[in-house]
Amino acid sequence: MKDCIFCKIAKKEIPSDIVFENKNLMAILDIMPVNPGHTLVITKKHYKTMIDVPDKLLSEMILVSKKVGKAVMKGLKVKGFNLGVNNGTVAGQKIDHVHFHIITRLAKDGLKLWPQRQGYRATEAEKIIKKIKKVL
Amino acid sequence: MKDCIFCKIAKKEIPSDIVFENKNLMAILDIMPVNPGHTLVITKKHYKTMIDVPDKLLSEMILVSKKVGKAVMKGLKVKGFNLGVNNGTVAGQKIDHVHFHIITRLAKDGLKLWPQRQGYRATEAEKIIKKIKKVL
Repeated sequence: MKDCIFCKIAKKEIPSDIVFENKNLMAILDIMPVNPGHTLVITKKHYKTMIDVPDKLLSEMILVSKKVGKAVMKGLKVKGFNLGVNNGTVAGQKIDHVHFHIITRLAKDGLKLWPQRQGYRATEAEKIIKKIKKVL
Repeated sequence: MKDCIFCKIAKKEIPSDIVFENKNLMAILDIMPVNPGHTLVITKKHYKTMIDVPDKLLSEMILVSKKVGKAVMKGLKVKGFNLGVNNGTVAGQKIDHVHFHIITRLAKDGLKLWPQRQGYRATEAEKIIKKIKKVL
């Protein structure tokens, strides 16, 4: 897609720090990492969110993320990582080309994911399940 | 695994709010949601992180997450969601049984993911890539 930075990276029109590449996917270093080694797995073709990615390719994305996640842990000697996919502007998606974040985590990096969590009131959960199941 | 809450939920020894279920996986409401509709996709068998899940089952997990994510958006009329997988204690994993978070997002929920991001210095990125590629 014209003017999409990840499409340009996939076509090598813009340079990037490539960690892994195959026919359909690329893994590149995020240029603004949460921690060193923060890697993105992107599709070469343009899709907006993971909902738009065909099933076969989406499966490949998670398997490449597993492979890269494992290598990042081993190569950088870190003990864990977050996989994160932001789907939609409301979810913090900044570039409208699907990308899987592999975020290396360090013992004292101070990152607090999702601080605001609270339980459901009375029959709220029941009502929510009904709404989801109706369209599943 | 004995004393694992998600194993007990998978075996229906502990009740849960089930959104979806098939032979290998379950999707349940998180009891401490970031936002209403926050759903977890769990394996019925016990695996610690996504690195430990066999490829075929991991593919199924991401496809079920896509299906559930789509239904959550449609059913609850939300415009996006975060997929999140915390792999390892250092990454904030609280229950040592792999689970994919599907976090519904609302326009003014105030959630700020990964606020502390900064660029690489000089040749830092190059060194990191070498370390990862060596074990990939």
